[in-house]
Amino acid sequence: MSIGFAPQAGGDRIRVVAFGGGHGLSASLRALRATGLPLDITAVVTVADDGGSSGRIRAGRDVLPPGDLRQALAALAGDDDLSDRTARLMQYRFSGDDELTGHPVGNVVLCGLMEQLGDPVAALDQVGAMLRAVGRVLPMSNRPLGIEADLAVGGAQVTVRGQHQVAVAQGRVLQVRLMPPEPDACPEALAAIAAADWLVFGPGSWYTSVIPHLLVPQLAAAVTRSAARRLVTLNLAADSETVGLSLPDHLDALGRYLPDLKVDIVLVDRNAVGDPEPVANAAESLGARIAIAPVAVQDGTARHDPVRLGRALVPLLGTAR
Amino acid sequence: MSIGFAPQAGGDRIRVVAFGGGHGLSASLRALRATGLPLDITAVVTVADDGGSSGRIRAGRDVLPPGDLRQALAALAGDDDLSDRTARLMQYRFSGDDELTGHPVGNVVLCGLMEQLGDPVAALDQVGAMLRAVGRVLPMSNRPLGIEADLAVGGAQVTVRGQHQVAVAQGRVLQVRLMPPEPDACPEALAAIAAADWLVFGPGSWYTSVIPHLLVPQLAAAVTRSAARRLVTLNLAADSETVGLSLPDHLDALGRYLPDLKVDIVLVDRNAVGDPEPVANAAESLGARIAIAPVAVQDGTARHDPVRLGRALVPLLGTAR
Repeated sequence: MSIGFAPQAGGDRIRVVAFGGGHGLSASLRALRATGLPLDITAVVTVADDGGSSGRIRAGRDVLPPGDLRQALAALAGDDDLSDRTARLMQYRFSGDDELTGHPVGNVVLCGLMEQLGDPVAALDQVGAMLRAVGRVLPMSNRPLGIEADLAVGGAQVTVRGQHQVAVAQGRVLQVRLMPPEPDACPEALAAIAAADWLVFGPGSWYTSVIPHLLVPQLAAAVTRSAARRLVTLNLAADSETVGLSLPDHLDALGRYLPDLKVDIVLVDRNAVGDPEPVANAAESLGARIAIAPVAVQDGTARHDPVRLGRALVPLLGTAR
Repeated sequence: MSIGFAPQAGGDRIRVVAFGGGHGLSASLRALRATGLPLDITAVVTVADDGGSSGRIRAGRDVLPPGDLRQALAALAGDDDLSDRTARLMQYRFSGDDELTGHPVGNVVLCGLMEQLGDPVAALDQVGAMLRAVGRVLPMSNRPLGIEADLAVGGAQVTVRGQHQVAVAQGRVLQVRLMPPEPDACPEALAAIAAADWLVFGPGSWYTSVIPHLLVPQLAAAVTRSAARRLVTLNLAADSETVGLSLPDHLDALGRYLPDLKVDIVLVDRNAVGDPEPVANAAESLGARIAIAPVAVQDGTARHDPVRLGRALVPLLGTAR
């Protein structure tokens, strides 16, 4: 496929670093694969989840919460039959009513491997090899983190602790913080950002999956310093943590947490965008133009369709600088 | 390697079916690999374990107890680096003090896959593929089984239920039974036995890992009917379930549970055998000659050394009929 892409540093592959966590990152990674472009994909994943299986695991063990890492790995699993079946095994969640109930198999696998190897990056690389993954999954930090937010609830301001609580709390997020506040970044993630051709942010839970990366000082500095171009994929709808937040507000939030952030392209769904002018204005304040395309699934739910999102990404990532 | 082997049914590989469970079967499988002979290995594994992690899993879920199956798979994992590391991951057992404590990762993986696929043989084949296993692992039955034994304790006779309880009970085993008493055999195991060149029994916990196969009527009939030659590897020492049982008694027990059993070779450790004559006599009553070789580890513990056991197996399995 001739896409007119001029790589920055030699070679013929486009190095993409995708930031996020959970379902949003999974959709982004599946879309990147669906482009068919010759991409070297690195996912940099939030490590602050404290709900469900990940929450139970991190409560008892000194490992990264595995859930978002597992989802990113599954999204990158190889196309062959065994890799596909291994990915489905990793995603299989125990039902029933015993000690395994609620845990996806892959969370237990990642937890065991992180303990056994004592090195989350080695553990992720090994599961990546087991899945013949078409990219690399890295944590944003090698230490488990917490999230804390100040919310406006009615007329009052309350502080909510824990990613899960922040994600489900009713109220407007005023300020979100990491605990501890200035964690070290994963060194391999910093290297990937420095070498990237593209940095891709979103979609995903804005305050708990997208913005946390910008709160890690070394990551924020690496993003600012990188010569890569940057693309933001906006969400399709507000969720409970972004209730009342418009699409322009989402972009403003990025700029608030990383004032030096420059963006090249903001990709927004054709139906979700409504009047494009406010989004275009907010994008312009980050230095970006907007690209409008149909990227949602067609059943009306607020989820990105990896194939349609991928189709929208082709001309954007493939454009010569 | 020229070994003078004349296969029964064409082809140039020797088809071996190894029966057992737990550590003994694992040693047998590792020894078979260590022979360097061109073997097609099938392990047929007991499914009556109810102790530890396997016991917890089968208590809450309608799956085979995974522990012995996992150990057999790990013993057959491919030699490449990723397979070796995947096998070590499957064997990694969680320490600590939470809901995962005591579970090996591979037990959780096998449990999840058996639930997801609803077919234990498909699950075992998939994990075998993940490990690039150099053989196949099958359950003796596709349903979880129980073990019950009558024991002589002092002057009294007591009935003990559960493989774990039978294995650790102090007392002489008078009679061992499966629950339910006449389970169906795994069809693929029956086919492997019918096509085998060699059937290998032991080493292992005699009443709870070796004899249970003979208590499955279809398996017993398949063993009796098979044109394969049969080799019994005797244990190195009595354990708590065989306290007071001599090596000849071990052989007599096989004949008691399967009167039609004919054996070709009984392999016994040079140090464990003591006076070889009683063992030779007991072997002869099964139609077997004895082979004496140094097959124990050299640190004095009662474990088979896979390399030494393999070395002893080469001239035996490689002999033309």
